[in-house]
Parts: sequence; structure tokens; C-alpha cells
Amino acid sequence: MLTELREEVCEANRALVEHGLVALTFGNVSGISPERDYVAIKPSGVPYELLTPDHIVIVNLDGDVVEGGFHPSSDTLSHVLLYRHFDTVGGITHTHCRCGTAFAQARREIPCLGTTHADHFYGPVPVTRVLRRDEVERNYEINTGRVIVERFEGLDPMAVPAVLVAGHAPFAWGKDVGESLENAIALEAIAEMALATLQLSPGMAGLEDYLLEKHHQRKHGSDAYYGQD
Amino acid sequence: MLTELREEVCEANRALVEHGLVALTFGNVSGISPERDYVAIKPSGVPYELLTPDHIVIVNLDGDVVEGGFHPSSDTLSHVLLYRHFDTVGGITHTHCRCGTAFAQARREIPCLGTTHADHFYGPVPVTRVLRRDEVERNYEINTGRVIVERFEGLDPMAVPAVLVAGHAPFAWGKDVGESLENAIALEAIAEMALATLQLSPGMAGLEDYLLEKHHQRKHGSDAYYGQD
Amino acid sequence: MLTELREEVCEANRALVEHGLVALTFGNVSGISPERDYVAIKPSGVPYELLTPDHIVIVNLDGDVVEGGFHPSSDTLSHVLLYRHFDTVGGITHTHCRCGTAFAQARREIPCLGTTHADHFYGPVPVTRVLRRDEVERNYEINTGRVIVERFEGLDPMAVPAVLVAGHAPFAWGKDVGESLENAIALEAIAEMALATLQLSPGMAGLEDYLLEKHHQRKHGSDAYYGQD
Amino acid sequence: MLTELREEVCEANRALVEHGLVALTFGNVSGISPERDYVAIKPSGVPYELLTPDHIVIVNLDGDVVEGGFHPSSDTLSHVLLYRHFDTVGGITHTHCRCGTAFAQARREIPCLGTTHADHFYGPVPVTRVLRRDEVERNYEINTGRVIVERFEGLDPMAVPAVLVAGHAPFAWGKDVGESLENAIALEAIAEMALATLQLSPGMAGLEDYLLEKHHQRKHGSDAYYGQD
Repeated sequence: MLTELREEVCEANRALVEHGLVALTFGNVSGISPERDYVAIKPSGVPYELLTPDHIVIVNLDGDVVEGGFHPSSDTLSHVLLYRHFDTVGGITHTHCRCGTAFAQARREIPCLGTTHADHFYGPVPVTRVLRRDEVERNYEINTGRVIVERFEGLDPMAVPAVLVAGHAPFAWGKDVGESLENAIALEAIAEMALATLQLSPGMAGLEDYLLEKHHQRKHGSDAYYGQD
Repeated sequence: MLTELREEVCEANRALVEHGLVALTFGNVSGISPERDYVAIKPSGVPYELLTPDHIVIVNLDGDVVEGGFHPSSDTLSHVLLYRHFDTVGGITHTHCRCGTAFAQARREIPCLGTTHADHFYGPVPVTRVLRRDEVERNYEINTGRVIVERFEGLDPMAVPAVLVAGHAPFAWGKDVGESLENAIALEAIAEMALATLQLSPGMAGLEDYLLEKHHQRKHGSDAYYGQD
Repeated sequence: MLTELREEVCEANRALVEHGLVALTFGNVSGISPERDYVAIKPSGVPYELLTPDHIVIVNLDGDVVEGGFHPSSDTLSHVLLYRHFDTVGGITHTHCRCGTAFAQARREIPCLGTTHADHFYGPVPVTRVLRRDEVERNYEINTGRVIVERFEGLDPMAVPAVLVAGHAPFAWGKDVGESLENAIALEAIAEMALATLQLSPGMAGLEDYLLEKHHQRKHGSDAYYGQD
Repeated sequence: MLTELREEVCEANRALVEHGLVALTFGNVSGISPERDYVAIKPSGVPYELLTPDHIVIVNLDGDVVEGGFHPSSDTLSHVLLYRHFDTVGGITHTHCRCGTAFAQARREIPCLGTTHADHFYGPVPVTRVLRRDEVERNYEINTGRVIVERFEGLDPMAVPAVLVAGHAPFAWGKDVGESLENAIALEAIAEMALATLQLSPGMAGLEDYLLEKHHQRKHGSDAYYGQD
């Protein structure tokens, strides 16, 4: 069942290590099936270097396991909730990358300070509010998804394909698994640059709006001329 | 004698280099035998890349060599003292990792600033007091173990499986050798993130207690649902 | 056509990844033909690990494709403009390297703080002014080249073979493709050192003029004695 | 001539890259012959990856080439001067490592903030004064050696086997080539830790004298018990 998706999800999970985005068993990548009825996700706590497509767990949109002999990631219900609400999202990558997580822990958005940021995120990478005690004690993972959705009220998740969960870490996404991984890589790159920029100029304001507009549109707009057809 | 333990200890020592936790001959990993009568530990000053299970030294709980043709790590008596007092500890990993050591040198605990920390350490990673002159001049290594034990009065070493020795470096531990290595890796990861977080928000307060509780319990509590059975 | 140049440009683009100067498809390297009538440049948005000499696009000095089945880098018109104005420049390397980009985002020049800098750049690495709205909305890439040329009024591009485009990232160049790559590597190295130096001594003034002079001349002057003949 | 020394020097130079201490052709390692009449040193400006023992240049104690078809390192006369004055030094490693060079550029000594430092350097790593204009304009490399020797008046170069040349970079040394390389590796490790420590506690005072004493003596003193016999 969903052999190709399993392989894609497995490969993207393993790529997290290669790109230096996770240590130990931190982080997880998932992808949704074309009919948007099943999600393939990393099993919980399995070392990346041992991961094969057979380990990938298939769950339905309630988060119930429908195939696979392993427990799915403990963050599964957060992923599922995002797929339910963000219907253009085909893949989700959650990491505990060093600088992205530092911004999440500092509860500061990543300001758009340059064109590298603008190429990937159309404005600051937002940070959620902190979950309340009751939201943590009951249905914690679902509520993690909910504060993300709440934070994106009025924002297009495909224009700003990532978020920082306050006190936790980033989630990035994309139209498919590979794009979610790319956005997670870009997120850490811009977080590293932003951290260094703020060291050099602590009060640095954001990039001019017309530069943000230009760089984002030349890559993602209807007249985009970045990349191949 | 203790062939399996030797191999495990040898492999964990070599993994320190792979994970970027040590340079030159800094650091050492040990493990205790199932009957808690012998400790297997790295020899002193042997380059990691040359290390084989035959180099691993077996000592008794007084720190006397009972098998092996090499001098044991100069920190052996610190390890032995910890095994005597922390009877749930089966493995100890001592590193001079960059950020963990920076906190030890700054004599600041690593505050719990996020869920990555909470997943591994149930509260701040504590820092010992500085040893007094007389404690350094006589029985230095034993006294290093003693200030760690002193600092853990009222703390469960399995809930907070690491410490920073003031002016020195971290010690991490676990129920076995592999878990102590994992906790040493996690320690450096959270120290890196904490350093970057404090750059962004110098006065950052710790994570909400209910988030610390939740993350630690979902991984380590009696109803844990992280990982496989 | 221009087989050798294609290979050189391909190899230099791939070297960007090896030297940790780019992530994803950020950055691009180009080289100009000996007759200065054609420019070989990376195609837009093609992953570095897939890049072969056949992907390299040949454009004329108006930026029109004259050979190759791919779209050229979206920054092509910036490269071409630089070749038109800097007639000693034979290769250009544009990266989004972490620290160099941080200085560009902070809109601060990289001060010459030591002899490593002086060995490669004869004075601070300058930063351009920010492009105006109209310069961004029309002919953005050409105007990027223009503000670089404007910034170099009175400066010799071969003495200071790099610039930071404000809010964007560095461009480095050299007498050929390989030298432009070397200068891009040197730029990130000195930016890293400058960032750390400014952390230690925030108001640090530049290197003494006679040290700058000496180090630059012993490597690049008419009586240079660095390197082989 | 001096085949073994050549190989040793070649290997140590190549190890600089492996340990991340140099980029491009920065840095150089040398060793002196047992009779202290010849010095083997890296040729100037040759890429590390191409370096073979045949490239290593043999000079006498005036710095004149006595064997080898390449120009010796442009820093040769600094090395030679150190060998003349420090008669226990058998090898010298000069790098432009990131954090060590940052301290040199900031013209701050590396304070002894922990036991990792004390294990290798018996007190702060000192910084020279800046060379005067006349010292730079004539006999620059010899004078670089001279300010190092001047700075070590009253210091034992084997107790503190490294220095920071103000505005330039570190030189490390040891009883032989391998030990000089080890001290260069240790220098960068403690510089990284010191930088991070000073971020956490900007006014951090040095390690207690009795801890410095203990750590240095247990490794280097007459009753040392670190390492194998």
C-alpha cells in the first residue's frame, strides 16, 4: 500500500541527518496520499540509520494506524491536523534544527532580513502562542496542530510554508514531501543567517517590501522565471 | 572477561568522535558489569581511532585495574564514585563538548528552554560548586565525583541524567552505556540551542512547567507513548 | 562550444557545496570566454549534485542564450553587467554563504581586521546601497550589477575582488573561474572570523594600514614572494 | 635527505585540512632535524590536497633553501627564528583557525577558563604586541618571530606552547611535529569554548590557580599520571 509514498517519506527522513537538521531520533517527515485519505509517517523513536520503507507507518486522517508494525511518530496527530486544514499541503517536515529551534525557544519570529529568506518565505516565519496548561494536558499533539492553524488565520500556508511552535521547534511543509524537506533546509539556513545578522545589527529592520515582493514573485509568482519549466 | 561490555564501551568511545563531541584524547566512556562489581573504561590518552576492545581496562569499584595492559582514564575514580552512589546508572559518558563545556566554564546551569531539553532532562542541567583547594590537591578525581553526588541531593539522577562540573565539563549517564552516550549527544544539542536562544533573548525564562512535565512524561513516564515497546 | 570553460564552470559550481558555501540551489558561478564574447553560467534551479557540463548555459553579453537547453541562472544579467564593466574579471562566484550573507543583511562592510583578510582583499569588503523600488521593479538583475559597479567607483575590482549586495548576499570574482571561487571561499572565512572578532571586541578598529599594505603586496604586488612562480 | 621528517611534515600539513583548521593555502607546519641544523617546511601556496613529501622544502637556519624545487612558505623566517630561540621546540604549526584567529584579531589573550585549557596550556595563551611600521616594512617575517620571542620573556614555551600574533593568527609548537599539530588542534578547541563562555558570562574570570596547577601537572608534571608510559 502506497509503496512510492513510503519510499519518499523514508528517504526524506534519512535526508534530515545528512543535512544536519536532527540528532538522535528528533524530528519526523510525513506525506499524504494523492486522495488525501492516508498519511505515511516515520515510526516513533527509530534511529534514522536503520530506517527502511517498511518501517514507515500508514495512518488515516484520525491518526489510526492502518498499516505497519510500528507505533507512528508521537507527533502524528499534529501532522494529521495540519493536513486536514491545509489542503494544499502534501508533505510536512518537523525538525529540532539548531537555529530554527533557538528562535522557537526565544519565541521570536524569524524576520525577513534578506533575499534568501524572501526566496522561500513570503514574510517573517511566524511563531505560535504558547499552549495553555489545559491544551497540553489533554490532546497535546492535536492542540499543537490547532495553534499552528490558529496562527495562520489570514496567512497562506503555501506562501509562508513554515512555523515555529513556541518553546518547541519548527514545522515546515510543501506541496509534496520533497518540497517540505527543502523548506525545512531553507528554514535552518535563514535562521542561521538571521541569528548572525542580529549579532551584527541587533535592531535590524526587515527587508524592504518591494525586495521581498520581487524575490518571492520571481520564484513563486505567476510570471516566475526562476528554475526550469 | 566482560567481552560484551568491553565492545560496547569501545564502540561508544569511538562514537564520541563521530558525533563531534571530543577532540584529540579528551573525554571517556565507561560501563558497569551486570553484577555491579567491575567497570570497563577507556585507557588514558589513547587516540580514539586506534581504540579496540582490547584496550578497554577493567577496574574494580576501588578503581584498581583487574584486567588490561593499559592505564585507565585519569578520570576513572570519578566514574567509580558515581557508580557507587547512583545505583541505577549503568554507563557514564564524559566529554569536553563545545557548548556543554562553555556552560560548565561559565558556571551556569543549562536552563530548560524547550521541549528538546524536556524530552531528555527533567529540569535544568545543574552545575556543581567549584572544588576547594584541598579537594583538588588531594583525591581530586574522587572529589569530582563527590561534588556531583552532593549536587544531586534531592535530585533523581535518572530524571536529570547529566551534570556540569564547574570549570571543567559535562558528565552524562544512563541505564546503560548506549543511553549515556545518547544523553551526552542530547546535552550538546540542547546546550547549542540554549546558547543561541540566550543570544536572541538574554533574559529568557524557562519552559512552562506543564510543558516540561508533558514532554518528559510522554517519553519517560509510566504511560509513555514515545518510541517502540 | 567552449567545452573547457563549461567544465571549469561546472566544477566550480559543484565545489560550492563541498566548501559549505551554499544550500539547495542557492548561488551560481560563471566564467567568460577568452575573447570576452560569451559567458558560461549555471542553469537556474538545478540541484548541484545533478550538474554536468552539459547543463551549463552559454549566453552572449546581452544575456541571450546562444547554446544550451536550460534557462540560465536568474542572476545572469547581474553577471553579464559585471563582465561588461570589469574587464579584468574572468570569473564570478555568487553565494549565499552564512556569514558573508549576514554582513550583507546587516548592511555592514566586512572590516579588515587581520592579515587573512589583507591577503585576499585590499581593504574592507564594501557593501552596496539598497536598490530603490523602481530599480527593483524594472530590470532588477541588471540594476543589481549596476549598484555594484557604482560602489566600485574609485576602487580596483582586482584589489578588492568581492562585494556585499545590501539585503542580498556576496558576489566574488577573479581573473578566472578558479580564482573567483577561491575569493568566495576566502570571503566566508574572513566573514566568520570578523563576526567572532566583533563578538570579542565590538568596537574593534581595522588592521594598521602598513600591515594591510605588507600582506597584500607580498601576495599580489609586483615583488610578491607568496606562492610558486 | 631527512626523508622521515619530510613525511611527518607533509602528513601534519595535510591533517590541518582534515581538522578544519585551514582553508585554501592558509597555514603551514614545519619540523626541525634531530641535529637542529635543517628545517623541513611546507612550500608556499601549494594546495594541501596536492601536497606530497617531495614538495616539502628543506632550509638551513638562515632560511636558505638547501633542498627542494619549491619556494618555502612565506612564513619560513618566522619559523626559523623560533627554532633558534626556543631550543626545546621540534615542530611548529601555524594556522588561521577561525576562533584562535578571532582572539588574535581582537588582540585579546585566550584566558584559561577551564580544565581543557589547563590540560594543554599552563595559563592564558598570550598575544604579542602589534609590530611597528618599521618592523613590518623591513624583515617582516623575522620580526614576527622576534615579537613572539619578546612576548615569551619569562615564560616557558613548553608550558604555554602557543601564541597569538596580534592582528594575524596563532602559532603553536611542541617537542616534535605531531605535538605541535596537537597543540594547534587544542588551541582552536579552547578558543571556541572560550568564545562561547564569554558570550554566556562576559566578565568571566579565569580558572582557580589550584585547578590550573592540578590539571597541568597531572598531564605534564614530573608525577604525571595521564596517558600511557
